[in-house]
Amino acid sequence: MPDFTDNLKPASPDGTTILSQERSQSNVPEDELAKHLLSRNDFLGRQQRILQVLEKDPLFNKSKQMNLSRPERYQLGLARAKKLRRYQDQYRWDEEDVSMSQYLCDDVSPYMVHYTMFVTTVREQGSDEQKAYWMPRIERMEAIGCYAQTELGHGSNVRGLECQARWDPQAQEFILHSPTLTASKWWNGTMGRTANHAIVMAQLLLPKSQGSSEYVSKGPHPFIVQIRDMKTHLPLPGIAVGDIGPKYGYAPMDNGYLLFDQHRIPHSAMLSRYSMVDKNNGTYFQPKNAAVVYGSLTYVRAQIIMHARLIMARAVTIAVRYTCVRRQFSDRDSNDPKAPELAVLDYPTVQIRILPLLATAFALHYTGEAMHRLYETTRAQIDKGDFSRMAVLHAQSSGLKSLCTELAANSIETCRRAMGGHGFGGGSGYIQLNNDYLSKPTVEGDNWMITQQTASYLIKRMQAAVSGKDKPQDEIEEHCRQYLSERKSHRPDQLRIFDKDEDIVEAFRRRSRDQTYRAHIERNERKRSWNSLLIQLRKVSHSESQSILVANFYDALNSKDASVSPTLRAHLSTLFRLFAFYTMDNEARDFSKANAVSEQDLDALPSKIQELMAQIRPHAVKLVDSWKVPDFLLDSALGRYDGKVYEDLFNRAHRLNPLNEITFNPHYKSEEIVMGGGDDLKKILAKL
Amino acid sequence: MPDFTDNLKPASPDGTTILSQERSQSNVPEDELAKHLLSRNDFLGRQQRILQVLEKDPLFNKSKQMNLSRPERYQLGLARAKKLRRYQDQYRWDEEDVSMSQYLCDDVSPYMVHYTMFVTTVREQGSDEQKAYWMPRIERMEAIGCYAQTELGHGSNVRGLECQARWDPQAQEFILHSPTLTASKWWNGTMGRTANHAIVMAQLLLPKSQGSSEYVSKGPHPFIVQIRDMKTHLPLPGIAVGDIGPKYGYAPMDNGYLLFDQHRIPHSAMLSRYSMVDKNNGTYFQPKNAAVVYGSLTYVRAQIIMHARLIMARAVTIAVRYTCVRRQFSDRDSNDPKAPELAVLDYPTVQIRILPLLATAFALHYTGEAMHRLYETTRAQIDKGDFSRMAVLHAQSSGLKSLCTELAANSIETCRRAMGGHGFGGGSGYIQLNNDYLSKPTVEGDNWMITQQTASYLIKRMQAAVSGKDKPQDEIEEHCRQYLSERKSHRPDQLRIFDKDEDIVEAFRRRSRDQTYRAHIERNERKRSWNSLLIQLRKVSHSESQSILVANFYDALNSKDASVSPTLRAHLSTLFRLFAFYTMDNEARDFSKANAVSEQDLDALPSKIQELMAQIRPHAVKLVDSWKVPDFLLDSALGRYDGKVYEDLFNRAHRLNPLNEITFNPHYKSEEIVMGGGDDLKKILAKL
Repeated sequence: MPDFTDNLKPASPDGTTILSQERSQSNVPEDELAKHLLSRNDFLGRQQRILQVLEKDPLFNKSKQMNLSRPERYQLGLARAKKLRRYQDQYRWDEEDVSMSQYLCDDVSPYMVHYTMFVTTVREQGSDEQKAYWMPRIERMEAIGCYAQTELGHGSNVRGLECQARWDPQAQEFILHSPTLTASKWWNGTMGRTANHAIVMAQLLLPKSQGSSEYVSKGPHPFIVQIRDMKTHLPLPGIAVGDIGPKYGYAPMDNGYLLFDQHRIPHSAMLSRYSMVDKNNGTYFQPKNAAVVYGSLTYVRAQIIMHARLIMARAVTIAVRYTCVRRQFSDRDSNDPKAPELAVLDYPTVQIRILPLLATAFALHYTGEAMHRLYETTRAQIDKGDFSRMAVLHAQSSGLKSLCTELAANSIETCRRAMGGHGFGGGSGYIQLNNDYLSKPTVEGDNWMITQQTASYLIKRMQAAVSGKDKPQDEIEEHCRQYLSERKSHRPDQLRIFDKDEDIVEAFRRRSRDQTYRAHIERNERKRSWNSLLIQLRKVSHSESQSILVANFYDALNSKDASVSPTLRAHLSTLFRLFAFYTMDNEARDFSKANAVSEQDLDALPSKIQELMAQIRPHAVKLVDSWKVPDFLLDSALGRYDGKVYEDLFNRAHRLNPLNEITFNPHYKSEEIVMGGGDDLKKILAKL
Repeated sequence: MPDFTDNLKPASPDGTTILSQERSQSNVPEDELAKHLLSRNDFLGRQQRILQVLEKDPLFNKSKQMNLSRPERYQLGLARAKKLRRYQDQYRWDEEDVSMSQYLCDDVSPYMVHYTMFVTTVREQGSDEQKAYWMPRIERMEAIGCYAQTELGHGSNVRGLECQARWDPQAQEFILHSPTLTASKWWNGTMGRTANHAIVMAQLLLPKSQGSSEYVSKGPHPFIVQIRDMKTHLPLPGIAVGDIGPKYGYAPMDNGYLLFDQHRIPHSAMLSRYSMVDKNNGTYFQPKNAAVVYGSLTYVRAQIIMHARLIMARAVTIAVRYTCVRRQFSDRDSNDPKAPELAVLDYPTVQIRILPLLATAFALHYTGEAMHRLYETTRAQIDKGDFSRMAVLHAQSSGLKSLCTELAANSIETCRRAMGGHGFGGGSGYIQLNNDYLSKPTVEGDNWMITQQTASYLIKRMQAAVSGKDKPQDEIEEHCRQYLSERKSHRPDQLRIFDKDEDIVEAFRRRSRDQTYRAHIERNERKRSWNSLLIQLRKVSHSESQSILVANFYDALNSKDASVSPTLRAHLSTLFRLFAFYTMDNEARDFSKANAVSEQDLDALPSKIQELMAQIRPHAVKLVDSWKVPDFLLDSALGRYDGKVYEDLFNRAHRLNPLNEITFNPHYKSEEIVMGGGDDLKKILAKL
């Protein structure tokens, strides 16, 4: 309905004018940078192509979905998942296209686990016969599947799973059973309402000897199990399955629970590529070495880092654009009472929260790229079963997963708070982003726990270097030897971090080795218990991961095949230094203890950081523009490309808010809630 | 519907057994501690009394509300607000009782701003005549009001408000007008759907001289304005008002927008206790000094800190109980393959995230108490118009608001992540807590911005101390002089923080003075611009606030009138040291630069912290129990007093989740979403 607000404009200068000015003042070569960042797998072209499909489909309009209830969010999620699947058929999308469509849709799909863990497990762990039976049904999506591993009482420690698969030699069947409440499968995506099949990880129980009534466990094994009726979609008898309820994020995903009551499944249900039970005599065949998993884990973790960088780019895009448009207070030192208000991003207290994160997005990018390249170059080795390179890659990837998802998760909230009041509002574009992304520090290996893997590897290499026998096994051990020899022969010179970028790289490396050495002493010489060292081990892992991020960033700018224009290289070098110095300043004492950086240089870091931020400030908008995050994905009034911040906020409130369609009775003596609504209180009570 | 899951129990030991053991192993005098913490205003008795009313009323049952849509959340909020108001009449609740009922209900009330800013402003800024007219209507809640200050384009900088109140001498009326979109009132609670009146802060525009058509602004002034029809509750002509839409938290609150189109209000609308416009000749009377505000601001900030400590206690209660019940992995150094899994809280990497926060809740408590006492003892002075003590109190309270709300806000997310997978689930009790509390770092003074007030005051005192004239104005200046004289005459001895608790207090004080001195040099000697120092100023403020927290904690345990039993004192002293050392360790370099603590002692902090955590670990459950946070408020499966973690999680999923009442059609070729639901896709699309 038109009204007097239709003619109102924001006070000038408006956001569009401001962002145009910001863009025209910068020499950042936006398109060159976008190509530089987003060429892998033709990301940019693909984004453009899929975007065109989704943007014109009203089902993928995001601006009002925050008003929906949880049950409605699942329904919307399912509708979108189906539509995307139909588009896949229609446009013959390949796997990368499908990923892109899910990324742009930005709602986790209730089909997600079907597409990932379910199909992968059948493909990798099914026998040829099983695959021949299942794969066509899976691809046609008659069998819609999930992956039931985690239990109510058991997460990271897979050996502790309680769900049982007991072999019944007489019937030649397995009996799935949940002996306790904590044995309930829990958290498993796609299971709650969507799937009709599940891969169930269960303790394989076999008779101790033939004919014995005593059973022994052979550990967790995968079974493929139908869980719902193919017609009615209701749970089969002996099975309790459902959705676990609302969570912090992932509203459209039906994370589920699943219990079995002496539920019988055929012998063929056990996925038997690597291990199997002989149908006739119950003999068990051992699984082969599972090291093959390492390879794909590294790939998955490279993907996690590449995704983390996009999350950070997205958070920072919104924050940079909004804090340029937003004005607040004039300069306190100005004598002009009519001085205009400053852009919020001109305050160092806002810069220090946002600009280092912008630099971090780039840091993550180069390490994600490096991991992909490493994975690709060593793939041939892996396929031949040579995992020597993979061990170090895997060890590094644990620490990197931990650090990078932590950085990305924290960046959203840091940016949000830097945006003041409107950061708390629904127009920020951060609410669902944050709620969904905050799962990442926990899933795919808890961020605190998996740092042990990295630290353990590093300490072993340091121990080997100390013993000094044989040739060094990898470059880490080589560095350890170098560190030890410097340590013995002389105190190495402190590095000139403000003069030479490569000295920054060396400072981080020396500090990481120093942390490793200290942990090695505690563990191997002082014989401290592992658990008592856990806090220190996390620090060892983070130090190494920071060192990798800095080194990859440096290498990308300075290797021979780094083909970037001098203008771009100058901007990237500023970002490199900002990332490195900011990281160093937060843990300055380490660098002093490692005799890597002088106290004087460490003292100078804060002002150096402020200088670098001042250099980046005029280019901030174009630097975030280069990440090419489409408005459709941002779904943010504050972060729009065209700067129409206030127009969009007002539109969402005044024209799109369903609450404003209802008039309420505010008087406390009346039980009526909606004006003329009658006994609406009863309706509310029924939902509690 | 009963099924086989009804008979299942969690694997043993179950949570109830575990928490009983935890409780029986500790000598923490729970009741003494509870009284020690929660006696102000009979908090405990009041909590018990109000709890009994709410617990038995199904309208206040929280366990399913996360499933509701935003519009439903507002309706529920309004229904609860009305009910609480009726209870207030019924049980003759006083103001503290009402606060307690809102605290326990834990949903922000749509009436909230009516109860607070609206009534306070009329009371404090209305003339006697205005109060006589309005107060009875407000108390009867015929006039339901809000407070419209913040605008779409203007928050902290109140002078920048755009909304106008132009005096029309002919008609003897004011004309309220929103000249731009950014002039729209925005964020104002209770305004979106509930209020029929508003206090509107608008630039008072008066003719430059009598009869002139040129207008000058006298700055923002308050007007009381009817905004909705008293019968239909629809907006009055010339007014656009509504709810701004979903936010990060505060779902039941109707934060609103409000615009005026040349809307006329009578002369009597301007609240005129301090400033007024003569109806007949348009003469303007200046507002008196507004320093009276400082007093209540200090009170409000003491309340914010007391609230922050309860938030932390709540977050930590859940985390401690759950991480005791939760088991994961057996000891890596154990040779026993059947060794039981360890309680997650036994891992130092979990302790380091939770136990320092437990200690921090106590630290906040003692400073909140100290601020309340200071406010009370200086109140007589304030009432006489003597604000000399208030200046320092106010300066300190800004920094403390910033630090304490930051600590509390971060504590929720830190605890959540420490709880692994279930921390992401709806049973954590953290989701709404976090979403709501995250407003606090921004409201009542943005946490980054207001640190300038503290730093500015400190630098002025240091400057006065350096000039050394007259007597010191307050204890801060006295400390500054002491710092300067030590600095001149000799390098003071480093402090013995591991031997004497008072040396810890002195170390924090010296470090804060050192930070202040450095900032003073930059600002007053090197003449650096204010804005270029903002990052450093925040550090100055935080250093001082940390010093205050440490000093008040120490004083509370060591003053003559601290009447705690020796057992309790021992526990509190451990918590004191943990808080102090943990805080110190995070910024260790400062303490070295200030020559307060030796490098050797700083190096020893991590292991000292780990020792202290090991001492607290066996008492953790009883220490959190002592905060007496009722299960009703926690609304957490993970944090229940009785430890029935898994039983409750399963109950919420299997029996309380409305999504499980619907069966879906999962096949992608069908547009049907709900089995047999027909064209339900249209219903979804209509809501987008």
